[in-house]
Amino acid sequence: MFQSFEENANPSQGPARLAALRQVLAQDGLSGFLVPRADMYQGEYVAPHDDRLAWLTGFSGSAGFCAALLREAGVFIDGRYRTQVKAQVDTDHFTPVPWPETELQDWLRGCLPQGGVVGFDPWLHCADEIEKLEQGLKGSAIELRPVANRIDAIWADQPDPPCGKMSVYPDDMAGETHVEKRARLAAILRQDGQKATVITLPDSIAWLLNIRGSDIPRNPVAHGFAILHDTGHLTLFIDADKLDDAVRAHLGSEVTQRPPAAFAAALRSLTGPVRVDKTSAPLQVARELEAANVPLVWGADPCILPKACKNPTEIANTKAAHLTDAAAMCEFLCWFDAQPPGRISEIDVVTKLEGCRRATNALRDISFDTIAGTGPNGAVIHYRVTQDTNAVLQEGQLIVVDSGGQYLNGTTDITRTLPVGDVGDEEKSCFTRVLQGMIGISRLRFPNGLAGRDIDAVARMPLWLAGQDFNHGTGHGVGVYLCVHEGPQRISRASHVALKPGMILSNEPGYYREDGFGIRIENLIVVRSAADLDGADDRPMLAFDTLTWVPIDRRLILPEMLSTAERDWIDRYHAACRDKISPRLSDAARLWLHQATAPL
Amino acid sequence: MFQSFEENANPSQGPARLAALRQVLAQDGLSGFLVPRADMYQGEYVAPHDDRLAWLTGFSGSAGFCAALLREAGVFIDGRYRTQVKAQVDTDHFTPVPWPETELQDWLRGCLPQGGVVGFDPWLHCADEIEKLEQGLKGSAIELRPVANRIDAIWADQPDPPCGKMSVYPDDMAGETHVEKRARLAAILRQDGQKATVITLPDSIAWLLNIRGSDIPRNPVAHGFAILHDTGHLTLFIDADKLDDAVRAHLGSEVTQRPPAAFAAALRSLTGPVRVDKTSAPLQVARELEAANVPLVWGADPCILPKACKNPTEIANTKAAHLTDAAAMCEFLCWFDAQPPGRISEIDVVTKLEGCRRATNALRDISFDTIAGTGPNGAVIHYRVTQDTNAVLQEGQLIVVDSGGQYLNGTTDITRTLPVGDVGDEEKSCFTRVLQGMIGISRLRFPNGLAGRDIDAVARMPLWLAGQDFNHGTGHGVGVYLCVHEGPQRISRASHVALKPGMILSNEPGYYREDGFGIRIENLIVVRSAADLDGADDRPMLAFDTLTWVPIDRRLILPEMLSTAERDWIDRYHAACRDKISPRLSDAARLWLHQATAPL
Repeated sequence: MFQSFEENANPSQGPARLAALRQVLAQDGLSGFLVPRADMYQGEYVAPHDDRLAWLTGFSGSAGFCAALLREAGVFIDGRYRTQVKAQVDTDHFTPVPWPETELQDWLRGCLPQGGVVGFDPWLHCADEIEKLEQGLKGSAIELRPVANRIDAIWADQPDPPCGKMSVYPDDMAGETHVEKRARLAAILRQDGQKATVITLPDSIAWLLNIRGSDIPRNPVAHGFAILHDTGHLTLFIDADKLDDAVRAHLGSEVTQRPPAAFAAALRSLTGPVRVDKTSAPLQVARELEAANVPLVWGADPCILPKACKNPTEIANTKAAHLTDAAAMCEFLCWFDAQPPGRISEIDVVTKLEGCRRATNALRDISFDTIAGTGPNGAVIHYRVTQDTNAVLQEGQLIVVDSGGQYLNGTTDITRTLPVGDVGDEEKSCFTRVLQGMIGISRLRFPNGLAGRDIDAVARMPLWLAGQDFNHGTGHGVGVYLCVHEGPQRISRASHVALKPGMILSNEPGYYREDGFGIRIENLIVVRSAADLDGADDRPMLAFDTLTWVPIDRRLILPEMLSTAERDWIDRYHAACRDKISPRLSDAARLWLHQATAPL
Repeated sequence: MFQSFEENANPSQGPARLAALRQVLAQDGLSGFLVPRADMYQGEYVAPHDDRLAWLTGFSGSAGFCAALLREAGVFIDGRYRTQVKAQVDTDHFTPVPWPETELQDWLRGCLPQGGVVGFDPWLHCADEIEKLEQGLKGSAIELRPVANRIDAIWADQPDPPCGKMSVYPDDMAGETHVEKRARLAAILRQDGQKATVITLPDSIAWLLNIRGSDIPRNPVAHGFAILHDTGHLTLFIDADKLDDAVRAHLGSEVTQRPPAAFAAALRSLTGPVRVDKTSAPLQVARELEAANVPLVWGADPCILPKACKNPTEIANTKAAHLTDAAAMCEFLCWFDAQPPGRISEIDVVTKLEGCRRATNALRDISFDTIAGTGPNGAVIHYRVTQDTNAVLQEGQLIVVDSGGQYLNGTTDITRTLPVGDVGDEEKSCFTRVLQGMIGISRLRFPNGLAGRDIDAVARMPLWLAGQDFNHGTGHGVGVYLCVHEGPQRISRASHVALKPGMILSNEPGYYREDGFGIRIENLIVVRSAADLDGADDRPMLAFDTLTWVPIDRRLILPEMLSTAERDWIDRYHAACRDKISPRLSDAARLWLHQATAPL
């Protein structure tokens, strides 16, 4: 079982650790120290070695940070974690701060009216973040000072950094060799007049070198840094123990492995200009370059866009992964429909679903911890069930099941909302509106050059007309046997990046009624050039191909609310699910699928 | 007749004037001089005194500029004017430059590889524009130098600046006295710690002081500048001859009139900080302040947002103006439908329509030159008919009629697309899609805080699904007996300003098939708080009220393409047109309206 239902957080140890930290800070003449959730790699998951925020405060959420001052300690958490933080931290010693409503600079100004020196570890913050914070502190007497990590100084039994084995990602999966990828990126560097670039995002390195890793759960990446030269040569700063002979042979002579400790000196020995991504590289990268007078150019990690735009091989493989995953989902849904209300729990649901995915014999990991929230828990957008919160599914509830798998040929992410027994008409009308938005994106066609922001309204309009909306983006980018949350593509008002063919995105509108119920329907889609239509303009347009083929619960759809085109879409979608997935199912699930995909 | 059908441009005089300009430039050691279309007030219409671009080049379009160098002279024009510019300028001497595809800085770099000094009149360019141009020229040896206007230096018979009479805008129209408005804005200045602000946009001054002017056609504004102090006192720099006793009495003792020539010295005598809008104030305003060491703060013209958010009185008056205008439109449409194909021309259409508006006895001006384009001319988005282009309406064509009126109680803008005889199904299906987008915006409801950009897709989606789109924004802001194009509100991918209650906007999707036909359907709408709905979220939402009540041609609608909700919208809209406008019509037009508003 990949997923655990334990809650490791424990508020009891925080105060003593905070006291120890303050002692160190006082000795060093610091007024405070910033403890982010992030590690050097700015990913969503951190290794136990890097879980400093949870160690200090008890708070185990996936985003947030602590500003530990000599007298106050603020734990900054976003809307998702308002309840959780109160259960996990000792609020006599730590103050939960609603963020981003309260910004760090304003909180610091309030706590340190006379000024002070606030330390931070320049390996854990990117340049962009510190630059904005410094802007925000302008005119105050508060100084930000890069220092060695003060948590590591007091954390006696800090686990070692992870040393997971790396593996080769086969060329027939990647569709392009790492030699070709490095040559392609080196040409960009030469064209931009840059001698080298620093790559610090593990999924960028994994994509570029056609390798995968096992340092953290859910994301098959290896922790390490890389310097790519304009010759195509690459130096990989990574623990040698992560590489076996196969990986070494795969990397070849143009890729040099060095220990992580050699990274800083290597930066100082570069001749510039060196391209650095200010939104992801640790600030320390820039500091090393500056200390050695190596010219630095801010610019995007050159892997980001090529990684986001999947090649035909990656798309074909991902399509296959989705068929595997859909079969597991259908087996799960068949089982689910046989369970009477009042008998199974959310943990039973998560366990059964992971079992169905494991039974494919292709599952490498789940792509994130399954969200299975029934009734009111469904309205908690990032709900993760624990032994403490585990609820039994009751008659009349909706359950939101958001899950995905990591397969060698692709990463999946799917949400289905299911009825427990008979549900009310209010739930069904909300469900149908969410579905209309999801269909709207699925069948959309739009001019080349538009960003996610420009089409986001399509997913929301049916809800808007009823005075409803949902408080999250419509879609996020997804990798190929990489991170289930991948940039830069998104369908969101925050996204200004043009959508391009090959980008994989989720399409997941929802609706949440606090203390009532939640609804979310999610398919993955991939951007493609739209086919010509009679009477169409002579302008390039884009459309989406659907990747996910799992029935959407017909019992929750009010067909009279759908337009003919929407109804046709559902019927065609369900017919395709039946055709594609039937041959992969057990007899029972095949029968279930047949019923679940009948025309509306 | 307000509208004229003459084309005053004449390519023949350009070369001699360009030669004279070059002589002056050479004497002054300048490599070139920038000649914008804009005057000091950055509006859409300029007085004959300010029509320097047309005088020099012959080009009479409403946007563009000339960069006149010693050897080259580029006339920069956007997509609308590619054809017109070739007819209006002598291309042996002037080079049309597609803009913004070619940016001025890049063109200058190409023409002046060795560098040079390019002069510009700092009264005619705002700070933002020059700042961006300087950025773009960085690293080149090209210097931008503010100089006295070199066109005025050679334009022997340059007309005088306009001196139109001002008039009082009654309080029962404005809904707020200018004393109240000045007090409201002065409080903002005090809150922001600013001693004064410079207001250079004529419609801002007109709104703030509840006055109107007659210096330029179509927009009832007076040319002048103002300084508003944080006490609420205001100094108005304007020709005294524009003010009669009534206006003087209305302005009262807290508003001081000074001659325009006193403006620069008054700026230099201010104590700061002074708020200046870098997107509209002439650069010279900042130069005067800087020369006198008066602290300057960049900030938006404080009239912009209050002016955009109409108060209940302005909205009620505008609604009444639209009823007047709708009656005129219906009389026109009744006449139009009685004309057989092949007999009337575009000029006949424009003339008749203006006549119908004049017959209301309420028309002060048209709000812009009527666009009446039949057949292929309808595909020219900003078509303005002249004697040369005037086409007879032929069987099977569509004609786009986009027009509006200036009434004391409001400004209107409406587009209807009409069939000439029987038109084809292709035209009808495109028309129906445009209508669907227009209905989509009309009946939209959306969360507070969204900008025009966030809802623009709603107007385009029906076209997108057919591989079609239109190359202009969906809507622009509109004033109240002020400019028919008013910022900052827009429905457009370029607009990041949140929509707020009281903002008046156009809703005008279209479709254009080059050399074929054009379609546009336009109503004005006003943003309001949305009423509560059963089952709605507890989140503030906005909706639109329709202001325009003129039938949309039923003969062009394919009802089978519409959803039930869209069909209901049209039928309800037409019923409302009938109820509201019938009592205002002649017998013939009433009969016509009855037929034109029958349910689909």
